Order: sequence, then C-alpha cells, then structure tokens
Amino acid sequence: MSNSFGELFRIMSFGESHGPCVGIMIDGCPAGLQLQAEDIQFEVDKRRPAAAAGQTARAEEDKVEILSGVFRGHTTGAPILLLAWNMDVRSDQYEKFRFFPRPGHADFTGYLKYGGFNDYRGGGRFSGRVTLGLVMAGAIAKKLLRLAGIEVLAHTVQIGEIEANASSTDDIRRNVYENPMRCADTAAVKKMSELIERFAKEGDSIGGVIEGLALNVPAGIGEPIFDSLEGQLANALFAIPAVKGVEFGAGFSAAKKRGSENNDQFIIKGDKVATVTNNAGGILGGISTGMPVVVRVAIKPTPSISRIQKTVNLKEMEGSELSIGGRHDVCIVPRAVVVVEAMLAVVLVDFALGERLITRVIK
Amino acid sequence: MSNSFGELFRIMSFGESHGPCVGIMIDGCPAGLQLQAEDIQFEVDKRRPAAAAGQTARAEEDKVEILSGVFRGHTTGAPILLLAWNMDVRSDQYEKFRFFPRPGHADFTGYLKYGGFNDYRGGGRFSGRVTLGLVMAGAIAKKLLRLAGIEVLAHTVQIGEIEANASSTDDIRRNVYENPMRCADTAAVKKMSELIERFAKEGDSIGGVIEGLALNVPAGIGEPIFDSLEGQLANALFAIPAVKGVEFGAGFSAAKKRGSENNDQFIIKGDKVATVTNNAGGILGGISTGMPVVVRVAIKPTPSISRIQKTVNLKEMEGSELSIGGRHDVCIVPRAVVVVEAMLAVVLVDFALGERLITRVIK
Amino acid sequence: MSNSFGELFRIMSFGESHGPCVGIMIDGCPAGLQLQAEDIQFEVDKRRPAAAAGQTARAEEDKVEILSGVFRGHTTGAPILLLAWNMDVRSDQYEKFRFFPRPGHADFTGYLKYGGFNDYRGGGRFSGRVTLGLVMAGAIAKKLLRLAGIEVLAHTVQIGEIEANASSTDDIRRNVYENPMRCADTAAVKKMSELIERFAKEGDSIGGVIEGLALNVPAGIGEPIFDSLEGQLANALFAIPAVKGVEFGAGFSAAKKRGSENNDQFIIKGDKVATVTNNAGGILGGISTGMPVVVRVAIKPTPSISRIQKTVNLKEMEGSELSIGGRHDVCIVPRAVVVVEAMLAVVLVDFALGERLITRVIK
Amino acid sequence: MSNSFGELFRIMSFGESHGPCVGIMIDGCPAGLQLQAEDIQFEVDKRRPAAAAGQTARAEEDKVEILSGVFRGHTTGAPILLLAWNMDVRSDQYEKFRFFPRPGHADFTGYLKYGGFNDYRGGGRFSGRVTLGLVMAGAIAKKLLRLAGIEVLAHTVQIGEIEANASSTDDIRRNVYENPMRCADTAAVKKMSELIERFAKEGDSIGGVIEGLALNVPAGIGEPIFDSLEGQLANALFAIPAVKGVEFGAGFSAAKKRGSENNDQFIIKGDKVATVTNNAGGILGGISTGMPVVVRVAIKPTPSISRIQKTVNLKEMEGSELSIGGRHDVCIVPRAVVVVEAMLAVVLVDFALGERLITRVIK
Repeated sequence: MSNSFGELFRIMSFGESHGPCVGIMIDGCPAGLQLQAEDIQFEVDKRRPAAAAGQTARAEEDKVEILSGVFRGHTTGAPILLLAWNMDVRSDQYEKFRFFPRPGHADFTGYLKYGGFNDYRGGGRFSGRVTLGLVMAGAIAKKLLRLAGIEVLAHTVQIGEIEANASSTDDIRRNVYENPMRCADTAAVKKMSELIERFAKEGDSIGGVIEGLALNVPAGIGEPIFDSLEGQLANALFAIPAVKGVEFGAGFSAAKKRGSENNDQFIIKGDKVATVTNNAGGILGGISTGMPVVVRVAIKPTPSISRIQKTVNLKEMEGSELSIGGRHDVCIVPRAVVVVEAMLAVVLVDFALGERLITRVIK
Repeated sequence: MSNSFGELFRIMSFGESHGPCVGIMIDGCPAGLQLQAEDIQFEVDKRRPAAAAGQTARAEEDKVEILSGVFRGHTTGAPILLLAWNMDVRSDQYEKFRFFPRPGHADFTGYLKYGGFNDYRGGGRFSGRVTLGLVMAGAIAKKLLRLAGIEVLAHTVQIGEIEANASSTDDIRRNVYENPMRCADTAAVKKMSELIERFAKEGDSIGGVIEGLALNVPAGIGEPIFDSLEGQLANALFAIPAVKGVEFGAGFSAAKKRGSENNDQFIIKGDKVATVTNNAGGILGGISTGMPVVVRVAIKPTPSISRIQKTVNLKEMEGSELSIGGRHDVCIVPRAVVVVEAMLAVVLVDFALGERLITRVIK
Repeated sequence: MSNSFGELFRIMSFGESHGPCVGIMIDGCPAGLQLQAEDIQFEVDKRRPAAAAGQTARAEEDKVEILSGVFRGHTTGAPILLLAWNMDVRSDQYEKFRFFPRPGHADFTGYLKYGGFNDYRGGGRFSGRVTLGLVMAGAIAKKLLRLAGIEVLAHTVQIGEIEANASSTDDIRRNVYENPMRCADTAAVKKMSELIERFAKEGDSIGGVIEGLALNVPAGIGEPIFDSLEGQLANALFAIPAVKGVEFGAGFSAAKKRGSENNDQFIIKGDKVATVTNNAGGILGGISTGMPVVVRVAIKPTPSISRIQKTVNLKEMEGSELSIGGRHDVCIVPRAVVVVEAMLAVVLVDFALGERLITRVIK
Repeated sequence: MSNSFGELFRIMSFGESHGPCVGIMIDGCPAGLQLQAEDIQFEVDKRRPAAAAGQTARAEEDKVEILSGVFRGHTTGAPILLLAWNMDVRSDQYEKFRFFPRPGHADFTGYLKYGGFNDYRGGGRFSGRVTLGLVMAGAIAKKLLRLAGIEVLAHTVQIGEIEANASSTDDIRRNVYENPMRCADTAAVKKMSELIERFAKEGDSIGGVIEGLALNVPAGIGEPIFDSLEGQLANALFAIPAVKGVEFGAGFSAAKKRGSENNDQFIIKGDKVATVTNNAGGILGGISTGMPVVVRVAIKPTPSISRIQKTVNLKEMEGSELSIGGRHDVCIVPRAVVVVEAMLAVVLVDFALGERLITRVIK
C-alpha cells in the first residue's frame, strides 16, 4: 500500500491537487497530546511561498481542519483526520495536457499506471500539493518529538551551482524562515535569489539540495537491517516529489575517503560517548549514535517550464511539442524545506514511540 | 520489524557472522519455479572475494542448503528456508573488542541497542556476512524476473578517486564478473587494483560507488507516494552495510541542472513512448517509465583498518585506542556488487508480482 | 495499527459517534471503477433502522460524501476518502457517564487505555456508529466483487431463543431488506419482532446470530496459515462491536461430530469438483473450496438498558449504580446484518485482488 | 503474507510434514532473555501424544535446535531461528493420494492453489506438524509473559458429546498435562478416553472444544477496531488446522441472553475495578478488562478415517473412493491444547511488548 507510512505513528496521505481537498490521516498518535488546528496551521504556513521572485502565486488559504481524533484540545488516541479544502482550483488549463505528458512530470507514468483514469488536473495525486498533508503530519510529529527533547531542522544548502556555507545550528534556527530561500547562510540567500530571478526570466527552472538535521536523538534509535533509520528516512524522503537522491553524513563523498579519514573515532564527552567527526551522519548499523542525524536530499529542477519541449500525443501515439504556461515555482527547493523537516519528524517519532521516549504524554 | 522486507515476495534475514549459520527465509515465492541449490550457489559464489589484493581471505565454503519450500526441484508456494553453515569461525580475536567499539562499525550502537547482549563476534548481526542471505534471495528473485524478461545488473563505477568510464550494457554483462573489481571498464580495473594494493600496504581502506541497472522494466511499475519504486529501492539498498547514499538517474547532479536540461523529453520509439535522455533514472512519480532503472549507491570505506584509532572503553567509560589486526577487505565495493544486484532484484520482483508480470510460473 | 485492515484493498476507519464525522479511507481500490456517492448511499441506507419496535430513533441523515480518489464518476487508483457528517449530536446526556462506565460497553477499557482522553460521548470511537464507515467500504468492495461474479449476503438467523428456519439463497436475496428483522424466514420475523417488543417494554435487550454467505467464490482463495480466509474473516468480523463469536460451516457443532459425518466428501458436479455437504463452510486449509463460504457471528445483547445496574465511580473508586435512559436498540442484530455483509466483502475483495479475479476494471 | 504473524513479536512459520524440517523464525524478541533449547523442548514435548488409545504413534524425536539469535544463553535481539529435523518420514504411502484428495483435508485446495506443486506428502504445509513451530514460538512467548506476570493456560473442555465440568484454575494447572485428554476434570477424562477408544475401533474420529485462559492480563491491552484483542486472537487461533470456531466469554450463548444477564456489572475489588461476571471473556471494545481472558475454540474431528469415503480423481476428473490406512489421531483435541496455549501467548506477548509490560528483560 503506497499511501501509508510508519508502524506506530502511521500516516495515510490522500487528496489531489484539484480535487475537493488534500490531507492526512494519522493512526497511532498517543492520547493526551495538546493539539489545536493552530499548531498545524503554523507548520502549514511555512510551506507557503514567501514573497519572492520565482515562486508560484497560487493563493490557497490552506486552512487546516481537524475532523476526528481530537476532543477538547487533546488527542484521544483515535485516528486523526486533517485536511485543507482546495480553493483556488482553475483546472481548465490542464485539459490540454491530458494526452500530452509534460516532461519530468508523472503525467505519463500516472496515465499508464491508472489506465487513463487518474485525475490529471495539476498533476493530481502526483502534485507537490499533496505534501501539504505531510506537513500536517509533521506538525504533530514535531510536537511529540519536543516532549522527548528531539528537534528537527532543515535548510537549503544549495540552489544550482550556489552552495551555502556551513551554518551553526543557531543560525539555522534563526534564519531559515526569515528569508524566501529557507537558507541559513544569509550571504548565499542573495545569490540564490538572483539566480532564481534569472531563471524565471529565461523561462527555465533549477534544482538544489536540502539538508535535514535531527538533534538530541538519543543513541540506540533504529534497527538493522531493513527499516533501518537510514532506510526508513530514505523511503519517507523519496515520497517528496522531485527528490532524486538521499545521503547521510559524508554520503557520496565517503566514496572518495579513506577509512582512517571517514571513521568517526570515539571519545568520552561529559558522561556520554561521542565521536570526533560525524561522517556517519549520526547513524551506524542503521541505529542512531547520539550525534546529530544529518541527511541531504537532492531536489531536481521543477519540470514545469515555459520553454518549448518535445512530448508525445498519447492518444495518437505521435510526436508533439508543448510549452507550459501559467505560474510555476522556478525552484521548488525553498518550499520543500518544511516538508523535509516533516518527513524527518514523522520517521523519528515512529522510532521514538517504539523506544518509549515520549513519556510526558499521558498514554 | 527490521529483518523482513517486501509485500508479496517477503524476505526475512537471519544469522550472525559467527553463529551457526546465515540465511534467508522467503515467503511469497510463487509455486512451480524450477529451483535447485545450484541456482542459488551460483549467485552466492559471485559474492566471494576474487583472488585479488586487498580482499579478505576468510575461507568459508558458503554452501547453500534448501530446508523448506522446494519439492522435487520446484518451489511449492510455501516458505523457502535457505542457509549456509558458518565454518571458519575464529571468534576469540573479537573478545578484546567487546567493550572497545571499532570506529565506523556498529559495535557501539549494537551494544547500546541490545544492552550488551548482542553477539559482538565479527560484528555479529551487523556483519557484511548477513548479505549472504540477501544474495540467496536475490538468486530466486532474478530467476523470477527472468520469466518477465527483466534483467538486473550492477558494476563498480568508482573506487576512491578513480571513476570508471561509461560502459555499454554488453560490457557490463561481459566484464563485471571477469575481474576482481567487478568493473565493466577494463581500463579502470588496473588503476582500481593498484589503488587498493596501495591502501592495503598503508593499513587503510577506501570507499566507492556501485551502479545498479534494471533493464526491460515495463512502464507502470511502482506507486506514489510511499513505497514508491525509489523509496523501496532506497530502503532495500540501505540494508547493505556501508551504504551511505542512494541516488537515481542524475541524482545529486540534478541539483545543479536546469529544468530544460534535466527534463527527459518524450518521443515515440517503435510503438512505445521513450525519453531522449534518462535523467530520471527510469522513474517518474515513483513509477517506472520504461527506460532503464538506474541507481547509484555510495559505499563508505571499510571501517576495519590496522591503523591506530581512538575509541572508548564502554565498561570504564574512559578513552582508549585500538588497532584492528587480522584480514579485512581494503575495499568492500567489489563484493557488494552482487548484493546491489540482489536488492534490486528483490524489490523489482515484489512489484512485478503485484503487477502479475510473472506469468510463466504455474501459480 | 488498529484502525486499518487489508493488504491490497486497505481500509482505514476514522471518526467518533459525536465528533464532526465518521467515515473510511480506502487505499488500493483499482482505477476505473464506476462510482458515485449514490452507490455507497444505497448500502449505508440499509444500515438505518427499519421502522420497527425497539430500534433507535436517532435521525441522522448519514449522507455519504466522496472527498478524494474519484474523478468524473470513476475511481482513479488514489486513496478514496468517504465520510458522513454527524448531525444529530446531543452529547450532554453522556457527561454523567464519564466516570461511571456502562456495563458491557467499552467505557471502562477506553478510559483506561487512553488515560481518560478518549471521546466518551456516545461511546466515541467504540460506538456502533463507526460501522457506518465499514458499510461504505463494503459498498465499494461489493461493486468490485460483482465484477468477479462473487456475491455476499447476510441474514439474521437467530434472535434470543428464536431461530429462523433454513432459507434458500433466493429467499435471502428477496426477503432480508423487506423486513425490520433482516431475516429471510418470514415466519420467524413475526416472533422475533414480538420478542423485541417485549424486551423493549421490560427495559432489557437481547442478542442474536447473523449468518454471512459468499457465493461463487472460486476455489483457491486464501492461504495457510496466518491470514487464512478464516483468520482474516474472523479478524474483520470481530471489528464489529458486540460480536463475541465467529464460526465457519458446522462450527462449534463440529465438536460433536464424527469424522465420517463431518467430512465433506468430494464429487464431480458438472466440470467442477464439489462436496456433498458443506460442513467446512467452503474453506479447507484456510483456502476456499468453491462451495459457498458460510460464517456465523454471535452478537451479544445491546449493553445499553434502562434497568438499574451496578457500576463504579472511576474518579472516587467506589461502587455506584446507573440506569441508561434515552433511545437504544433493544437488539442490534438487524442493523448489523449489512455490516457483516460489508466485512465479508472487504475481506474477499482483498483476496480477489491478490488473485487478479477482478479484471473488468481497467487497471 | 500468510506465514507471518505479529507486529512486535513477529513469528514466521516454515517447514512441511515430510520435508527436511519444521520450525519458526521469531523477529522482535527482546535482547537479554535467558533462553536454552531445553526451555523450548519442554513445551514441544507437551505436544507429543500421551500414551493413550487413539493417538498417532509417529515417533518423531522433535528435538529443538536454536540456529540464530541466541548467544551465551541469552537472546540477542536478532531473529531467532528454531527448528526440528523431520526424522520418521515414510512418504510413499502418500503417493496414492496425490490426485485423490482426502475429504476434510486441504489436499484439494492445496493442489488447486499451488497448481499441483504443493508438497502433498502427509498434508505437507497443511499438516498438523507445522504446529510444532507454533509451540516453539509459544515457549518463548510464555517466558516473556511470565516476566510480566501473565499466565496462559488451556484445557480440553469437550470431546464429542462429553463436556467437562468447570474446573478451578488450580485444577487446570495441576491436571491438564497429567492425563492424555489434557482435561482438568478428571471425571470426564475417563469418559473421553472411552469415547476415543470406541471411535478408534470404529475407524472413525471425533471433534471437541478447547478453552484457553490468560490470567493477570492487565486492563488496557488491545485496541479497537481491527487487530483488536479478539480479532488478533481469532486470527492466530484459526491458524491451527481443524479450528472451525472461536468465541470469547459467553460467546454464542450470548445470543440467547438478555442484556441484564449478559452485562458484566462493575464493582471495586481491592484497589481495582472488577466485574461480577465475566461474560465478556475479559475483553470489551477489543481491550482487556483485567478479568481473565477466556476463549474457546471448536476443533473438528480428524479428517483421516479408515472408513471408505467418496473422493474424486483430480487427473481424470471422475468420481472415486478411498480409505485412509495407517496411524491417525482419532481426536486431535488433546494434542492441540498446547498449541492453543502457544497462540494465546504469541498474541499476548505482541500486545504486552507494545504496552511495555515486559520490563525485566534488559532491552
């Protein structure tokens, strides 16, 4: 089953870009968590495009409603149904793409998979809009993790050729949601913005890299060999449309490293075991080491571009061309930052519940 | 549950490096598949170190036994239990590491997770030796995929700084198991071997990158949004010890690409839809496009090195040092090639059974 | 996870008796099924109390809404979200029971399990009202089964001491929804109605037995040993509040039978293998035999009665008493008939999809 | 997947009656449990036929071997592989039944399901012999439950028309494994034995009923609505070959009861909430009440009888007859008692781990 994720904190995604609503159902949230629609709205609002060049102008309200599982301001232990109604739905424009799949989009694979019955409007089920539900789940997951002292963060570390400089945790906390690039390195923000503006003018798009962090994850979370901390995080992160790579710690750069350089040597720090470096990204043998969990995801450039591209007419099975008009994000990276946070939180809360780390909730 | 994987072709890994055996149980293999121990042995033998510099000399026989689920040379539809008895078990040497976790290994996390009850000999459950079971499962998965015309391949594309040149599919088929580097680019093999020999002398180790390919995967395999083709492959590949990154198609390089460059434009090729390029690695929206599935995994350098490293004494909670003697693979990459093939096959057969692509088996 | 069921046709129940809504989410419904809200409404309406003595008068509209997964009258392959808004919610009356658990209800166990955070109004998550969602899922499952020629039926066979005479399949089809007892034996209906009327006057309640049938289930559906046809049906049927027993074919009466009497001897009937008797209830070794699947469920008497009963004050931990006023079904059996049908359909469609019996849907 | 069961304590059954071995794999057993082969052997030996009339004389040794997951007398947290080699395998006699399905057995459904590739010798995968693995899992589950103070018991309460009188818990503990009927009522034992002897002479067989009990299960175990305590127990119990019905507490007799009679009224007993009666069998809303969990399973008469029965020739598709010679249990009930205990234990330990009731194990 492809729309559910998690063992103990199980999320089930539903909704389409231009259907009545998008949302998430959560089964397994412990009873007794203080929860109001505002808590979720706060996270959902982070996903909205900041007032910057090159971001989509679709003006959804994205107002979160809680339809079950919460009673008098607390979770009840029953399934929580969260949704936002789709408001700004102008679907006519998609009619013309029905049999002309947009390159880089899932139009073609969706058409094939579902025998043409898929809701193709705005990408339907494959739209970035479904991440709204993921962010809703992330909002609850973060609240739970906070009870265990675990914090998740994410930030843009690369857009196109422009790489951000390394930032302190404090800078990440402080800066990310203060700029439209969702980047902690304020010097890089300007360059990234200029780059996006340039691509917007050229009718093109650009990719990037987001780094996710989980702090204060105690050692011992996760398990070998399947559904390891890495395996589960990767599975969850690949659910975000446009993610094409996931790496932990040194990741692909570890391929060029010597063992003597890549191994994180152990030391005693305070009353705990720590490592001098963190090339492992906080994970050894699929289990957390107690060091920060560090993951990076590669985001491909937005497939929707106004430039003319080759496509095919699926009905006539002949070559064709298209140009995608309308409003599109030149770079989806900034808006995906809160989604990466959400997926990190969702995976960690699942493991944390298994380890009974979340004890301040009543049950 | 961390030792099982798959929905319809479900594998369950068991065994420790220095316990009685390692193996795999498979639930969901269709009845009627011709299967003999030799079929599995053939794949398992590919995992054995080739006679080359820098490879471990542990001389296990790794003889595969079928203990259930096969009757008169055919699968019965019942669970298949496969194992190899551990022969060459000299475990005394590991006693000294019990409370001194080896950097880069899962000794520390395993100790913590299991309260010191883990079988620490040779990494126990975290040892690369458990991949023997994965290869056994892969052998059956490949046989099934062959009935659907699907082929999986893997090859070393990078060791340390040395990158192999792009190879044709035919070269991959022909060359990989003919050289100890499991590399299709015979020119690169020499340089890789020299590099490994050098690191062996220096008592150090080195990482690399393996590329996996699945050919003739029909369009329409996989599903959004969780347990997508990418998500499931990533989850399975991170089960291989030492994998720290997974990317599809252009992967992390897509972050620097423009949409106009990264989008794979559609064309008609014969009577099918194809794409001009394959930056998507054969997957859009979590579903196969019909183009080759291309995945690359980053393998970290072997953590076992003879150089002196810092560690801690877990019993006394104080700093210490260690040097890991004995035989170790300088570079695990070549031996992991068949494991990457196996995991590719296991994931694809699960999806292929769901799509009923495997029809030549009786039931 | 306790609110999901099924592997390929996965249903996820949500909602509370007095919350905003009750409903079901379905993941795995094939694309291309013609589906309108009316199809589901038709089944949901069968669950409403018929105009008879002793049935609850709560006048919900129970209007079904489709919120996702259906596009232009066909399923899309995406998750289907179905719900009905709760209208007639008078929850004040439940306030007084908060710390005084009603005997036979789940008030006590729910209170304990969820640390007092459960929505206790009207039984909340434990209310029979959640079966509304199950019936919605059943409506879709039945439509799918019809494409495979499989029919599910259910009928009241016992209320209190009154047992219905055996009925033909045609009588079951014709009579069940024509009388308030949901009983195929019209002679028994009168006696059952009188019994219920009598218990209504006495402020008491009564239990009964429902028989479910699945016709034209081809031989070979199901599997040993867990999640067998019997195991899955039982698991699903015990999800219906008030079910306390499940038996197949001869069931508990088989305990008194000789082998020579209980064994269903094989014969050739037409071009198929059949059995002379059907004491196995159409299932051998957890797999369908091709004979009708026959299951019976025991329904306990409605726990809500106006008679004075002993209870405890959970806050003060002292003995107390209560009498439950208001409107209650004297016998829940008739309203549970369509729910039994639904659960039968949901389980069978899951297996049928696995066997690819449903082929007239496009994908 | 049909051969696995459980979420946190996951068991995977394998092996055939006349293959190399039968056994079980367990994933999720906590690390640190003292475990030796003898612990498991003790339970397995209870499953062997007592020296009484009408029991099969097949003299397997059924010697339990631990092949993984245990290190120096303690579980490691890794998968535990347990098996017993099949010794006394005379399979020639089964050759003649290959195309002549034995009535009441799964020969026909297995043949059909697996396209004739099933191992038909001795029922193969459908044989009662696979319960050996279940008992092995039960042995570990019981050890874990004991750490939580939970005890599981089972006893024969009916064979044919002979019903045992109600027995005290102490009598069950004391008597069951002291007589070949596995019955706590010693007066009934004699009558049951005579009955079995009579049926043995007549070449016939007989069914019965087993009652299972779980004591000291704290209130709050289980969950609505699927995978409830009742649903999971039923699913597990129907995995035992020959089980055709499962009921809790008053079960089917509740159908004839009034609410005022069937409701278990609440009282304070010591410092806990208890109920005056236990018609609910210790379960309300799928959650334990703190009262004993009481379940009864109906066991059909052994299908193997020497009397001549009608069958069909599957190859020629024509009617035929057969008589099953050899040694067979006239009544399988006594041997199934320990299997019922095992399944109770396996289900409860899964829930108990979820509730973190088992804390005396290190991890």
